[in-house]
Amino acid sequence: MVPCQVPRWSTWIFRASPQWQRTACALGASMGQQRWLSLPWRVSGPLAFRGCSSTALGVPRVMPTSERYPVQRLPFSVVSEEDLAAFERIIPGRVITDPEELEVANVDWLRTIRGCSKVMLRPRTTEEVSRILRHCHQRNLAVNPQGGNTGMVGGSVPVFDEIILSTALMNQVISFHDVSGILVCQAGCVLEELNRYVQERGFIMPLDLGAKGSCHIGGNVATNAGGLRFLRYGSLRGTVLGLEVVLANGTVLDCLTSLRKDNTGYDLKQLFIGSEGTLGVITAVSILCPPMPKAVNVAFLGCPGFAEVLQAFSTCKGMLGEILSAFEFMDAECMQLVGQHLHLARPVQESPFYILVETSGSSAEHDSAKLDGFLEQALGSGLVTDGTVGTDHSKIQSLWALRERITEALSHDGYVFKYDISLPVERFYDLVMDLRGRLGLRAKHVVGYGHLGDGNLHLNVTAEAFSAALLDALEPYVYTWTAAQRGSVSAEHGLGFKKKDVLGYSKPPTAVQLMWQLKALLDPQGILNPYKMLPARA
Amino acid sequence: MVPCQVPRWSTWIFRASPQWQRTACALGASMGQQRWLSLPWRVSGPLAFRGCSSTALGVPRVMPTSERYPVQRLPFSVVSEEDLAAFERIIPGRVITDPEELEVANVDWLRTIRGCSKVMLRPRTTEEVSRILRHCHQRNLAVNPQGGNTGMVGGSVPVFDEIILSTALMNQVISFHDVSGILVCQAGCVLEELNRYVQERGFIMPLDLGAKGSCHIGGNVATNAGGLRFLRYGSLRGTVLGLEVVLANGTVLDCLTSLRKDNTGYDLKQLFIGSEGTLGVITAVSILCPPMPKAVNVAFLGCPGFAEVLQAFSTCKGMLGEILSAFEFMDAECMQLVGQHLHLARPVQESPFYILVETSGSSAEHDSAKLDGFLEQALGSGLVTDGTVGTDHSKIQSLWALRERITEALSHDGYVFKYDISLPVERFYDLVMDLRGRLGLRAKHVVGYGHLGDGNLHLNVTAEAFSAALLDALEPYVYTWTAAQRGSVSAEHGLGFKKKDVLGYSKPPTAVQLMWQLKALLDPQGILNPYKMLPARA
Repeated sequence: MVPCQVPRWSTWIFRASPQWQRTACALGASMGQQRWLSLPWRVSGPLAFRGCSSTALGVPRVMPTSERYPVQRLPFSVVSEEDLAAFERIIPGRVITDPEELEVANVDWLRTIRGCSKVMLRPRTTEEVSRILRHCHQRNLAVNPQGGNTGMVGGSVPVFDEIILSTALMNQVISFHDVSGILVCQAGCVLEELNRYVQERGFIMPLDLGAKGSCHIGGNVATNAGGLRFLRYGSLRGTVLGLEVVLANGTVLDCLTSLRKDNTGYDLKQLFIGSEGTLGVITAVSILCPPMPKAVNVAFLGCPGFAEVLQAFSTCKGMLGEILSAFEFMDAECMQLVGQHLHLARPVQESPFYILVETSGSSAEHDSAKLDGFLEQALGSGLVTDGTVGTDHSKIQSLWALRERITEALSHDGYVFKYDISLPVERFYDLVMDLRGRLGLRAKHVVGYGHLGDGNLHLNVTAEAFSAALLDALEPYVYTWTAAQRGSVSAEHGLGFKKKDVLGYSKPPTAVQLMWQLKALLDPQGILNPYKMLPARA
Repeated sequence: MVPCQVPRWSTWIFRASPQWQRTACALGASMGQQRWLSLPWRVSGPLAFRGCSSTALGVPRVMPTSERYPVQRLPFSVVSEEDLAAFERIIPGRVITDPEELEVANVDWLRTIRGCSKVMLRPRTTEEVSRILRHCHQRNLAVNPQGGNTGMVGGSVPVFDEIILSTALMNQVISFHDVSGILVCQAGCVLEELNRYVQERGFIMPLDLGAKGSCHIGGNVATNAGGLRFLRYGSLRGTVLGLEVVLANGTVLDCLTSLRKDNTGYDLKQLFIGSEGTLGVITAVSILCPPMPKAVNVAFLGCPGFAEVLQAFSTCKGMLGEILSAFEFMDAECMQLVGQHLHLARPVQESPFYILVETSGSSAEHDSAKLDGFLEQALGSGLVTDGTVGTDHSKIQSLWALRERITEALSHDGYVFKYDISLPVERFYDLVMDLRGRLGLRAKHVVGYGHLGDGNLHLNVTAEAFSAALLDALEPYVYTWTAAQRGSVSAEHGLGFKKKDVLGYSKPPTAVQLMWQLKALLDPQGILNPYKMLPARA
């Protein structure tokens, strides 16, 4: 997973040799970087592909980030016994130094990145977060805010020995208003639990993610999570009504209003949405929940070409309008891999492309009628050549599985180079075809699928094994191609640690400079989630 | 109009004496303030109410802002002949110094605020805006960006002699994509013209305003305009996909992407949405347009109490769900005034409250069925006691007129103290009732109406004439009451010049301080739209 998310010009190595793993992050960083630069060799093979190295017992172990990447520890203080005692006074019994508990928090869920933090703090209140950050600010201690640790780009785990500031115990609903649908809660509430809570009151959360069982709403907001309901309910920038944030110096910024309209001054909460914990720690969220739909339908359809996919999307928006809640697409190679590796049966005739259309509305009868109208039109005009519709829960699930399990099927196909990009829809599939020509037989499969309704393409290239030559053919080509279309090199996953160096492909230097100025304004010592999101300054 | 929008602790006077009007803003500001403070007297009467003073010929003339308000000119340079020559080189033939043309641009459309700018610039391109601002930055010349000049709070006209930077000639559509519905255009495009343009292609603009015939999309974005489609299509913070902005020093910040998802770095465009031209000049906008609805219905209904209004809203959201596009309310006194002053007939039985429910959807048949279901339920359960439904254009217009013409009816009732606030819906009407008790016979009418679906209350108090005592009873009471509910003292109009001093009622000091820090970061000399949005620093 790692190589595809690291820019070509970075030098990195997968090491299998156990002695490298014991390097102390807090001390070895600077040395580590020099080693990287002097030994630019690469190891391929299964462990390298997983980003793991083996321990003496053969249990896969994730290599420390400071060893894998050419990153240098910044001159933050090292946590002392006095610091631990100070934290213990602020949050008695919730200062975690147990290595086993820290192991889970130091490693990302993809198991590709490993920090070596020696302490995790579990505050329950905003006041506790404020006191912790005030202390860290005074002592120049770096802090890694952590929610459910479900991020894809290494943003939620330490790189070196940053203090892990967990929101796990900040999990209280503060209020819910059953007329307006406005929920106010602490940042550590788990998305799925919130969804259950508001569903019992006739609403749903405006976002849904695969990681909903673990991810925290604060993390969702901090990473501006997209997900499955984006097409229908839009961005968190519209649905988040208020935030409470603790700044780097411990100041509590209370913008936790529950108002749909508020044009008094600059909308400061927007600074923190999508800033990945680098500008402040989100402690509470006010969010607008839409009413729960009464009916859901899913149609899985075959299309003869990508032009027809686009035209089907256009027709769909016109005819389904307000009830359209998802428009996903996958190409024939995706379906082939899902069949080959997961033995999922193709529910329609073989086609060059497939689309999944979901409706969510307030009347089953009306929604079915609208969907039938669209299907009749799409079939009649040749946009769609075959299809099936699910209205009951189990069929809906099985149709969604064809789309949702593509990632899993790909992982069975060999080494996977993964890209998550936004493109103008008219160029959406060109990059996939372009790469097929460019890579030829060097790639097993080049597949395209994703949230077409949101312009979000998941581009994946598989090979028998990791290949530096293939990587060189892919990067920076994919990024420059995306940049030429004014696309985004990170549609929904953010930049975190792994992608921070490709920011410049999607944002001009003036923008990057302003981002650094904002960072310096809000976190002058740079203690909040260092080494993340912004590329190192020249 | 003015007194209601000026905080109680500001001292101001309406002057009828012509000699005051000739005071040169650029020179007289400092003196003017001292005069204000030493002569705290007020003149009431029709001209005062309009914020006008009479000229020698008896034609109403708006009093210069620098004379009415205790505001002091900041030490910007004064435009010289050399500056005019430099501008002429940048935009030949588009440097306006004609007094008649400047008159229109110096006065707001409410005719309550008057600047005395001596020059207006009409660039056509971003490059021209950049060169102009670079010059102004170097010369320390203040700049007032101006779109359609339809703002309600004096944000769009100069206070003193700021250079007016008009977007009127930046009116080109750059691109429109008829699959995604993404429009990219220059900032000076008029909203109504854009709506017509996208309607011809099967879409609508995601916002609609009374001022649509004049307002510019750049101004809409700069003020984060709300309007009539907010309930359905949400905030511009979600629908604006990209911006091009020229910073105070002339740097062009190109964030003009057309991507629904882009999580690469901080979302800088959010800084400029709603910043009222104080952080940068918006030169181009990329915005997502929803498909044009095929059917529209409007129901006008009588409710027996405010509790029933709230319950009707809740029921409505559940039963109409995705097709609900407006939920407006007005109280009995509004209807009485509309009947009394405009002779509009009440279309339903007399009730304590009235609601207007609009649906917009993709199927006339389905939408009518849903609306009928809601009406049956609402009538059956006593939430609504009487109602009428319009489906054709003319009846829809006449029902909307009852709501839209309340402002006009109020203006016929005498002097009007106006407030535009956001409140949690459960406290929405309490303030109206509270004020009735507090003001007693001092007020002719205390009325409440507005966008209940957005939590946006228009609170208006009428009296035979302006009364300082009544104003003292209203302010800061209305603001402190709103603040106690964590409401917003400016829901959709922004702060501009007139409301900048009430910011503190809706935002805590830490937030205001951060706003000033952002202003200092982006516009260190403070040349962009000075005297606006942020309260003067202590």
